[in-house]
Amino acid sequence: MNFLEERIVKDGIVKPGNVLKVDSFLNHQMDIALMDEIGKEFHRRFKDKPITKVLTIEASGIAIAYPVAREFGVPLVFAKKSKSINIEGEMYVAEVESFTHKNVNQVIVSKKFLSPEDHVLIIDDFLANGCALQGLISIVESAEATVEGLGIAIEKGFQDGGWRIRNLGYQLESLAIVESMDAETGAIEFREQ
Amino acid sequence: MNFLEERIVKDGIVKPGNVLKVDSFLNHQMDIALMDEIGKEFHRRFKDKPITKVLTIEASGIAIAYPVAREFGVPLVFAKKSKSINIEGEMYVAEVESFTHKNVNQVIVSKKFLSPEDHVLIIDDFLANGCALQGLISIVESAEATVEGLGIAIEKGFQDGGWRIRNLGYQLESLAIVESMDAETGAIEFREQ
Repeated sequence: MNFLEERIVKDGIVKPGNVLKVDSFLNHQMDIALMDEIGKEFHRRFKDKPITKVLTIEASGIAIAYPVAREFGVPLVFAKKSKSINIEGEMYVAEVESFTHKNVNQVIVSKKFLSPEDHVLIIDDFLANGCALQGLISIVESAEATVEGLGIAIEKGFQDGGWRIRNLGYQLESLAIVESMDAETGAIEFREQ
Repeated sequence: MNFLEERIVKDGIVKPGNVLKVDSFLNHQMDIALMDEIGKEFHRRFKDKPITKVLTIEASGIAIAYPVAREFGVPLVFAKKSKSINIEGEMYVAEVESFTHKNVNQVIVSKKFLSPEDHVLIIDDFLANGCALQGLISIVESAEATVEGLGIAIEKGFQDGGWRIRNLGYQLESLAIVESMDAETGAIEFREQ
């Protein structure tokens, strides 16, 4: 097991309905040392790519993407889930269905921050059905920028998002891929990588 | 002018209605080197306090609070704006009115992550009418934890949020306090600190 898998086993909580709670260290309270380690690991995996921007989606994605952008020395851009009156002008827009909240969000990125010259690393905390990632890919493609890869902290390997995105030919790196979880025993099984 | 005021003058855009757009470096696209400098500055200003947690509010607050938590070597907790089905059990709740979005949000923090032993530094990107900060203060007080101080990147000095919070006796540190802005000329005047 790698450092993130070990932490999930130690502090993650399996709930009925294939819910994995990691809110004590990853997506509500954050262990910054762990985040920094995640940043270093994604840098190691994508360091041969000419990354110019790191793109994520609010909110918890920001804390994963921050140390990644820091390692690459590039700006961090986060997609917003609702239109703000403080944001004017032209936007890239994608529709994203939220598994957690059971609704559809428009996600938007200002056209100022993605251009055809950009080589983008997309980062998020969770991958399940892949809707959020596909929205971010669609936004990068709308900008005629290049998706250089996608980095995910925790992938639910028993849902098809990862398969669909790898099938499109993208380099998708998930630090932990959960194959199965048992809410009764709390057992978590990871995919060998 | 300090480093943040200089950056606001260089890259901030004044819009009618007292809107200051800093989305190219602070709250949509983030300049990580600037964020790290903000983190160091807040550490310098609060380093004599026994901080155990940094608390912020999603989404853009996370990118300011991350380097602060990193400097203090403590966990980062962010308040969420809507109830998620992945969050069960007991929550601290406060109501916060959004100046930007013209609506009222419930903000919530899991009771697991704040306790009476905690000494909390509250961090956010903007302070205008102070509703978000007051919601966060209320959450810390619900936990019977101690608010050790509040750190803000940009305060709108012509709105009364800063006055109200300082009047309650809190140490509120704003790196840049905008006294006035002129959308016609783009001029921005800062409070001498």
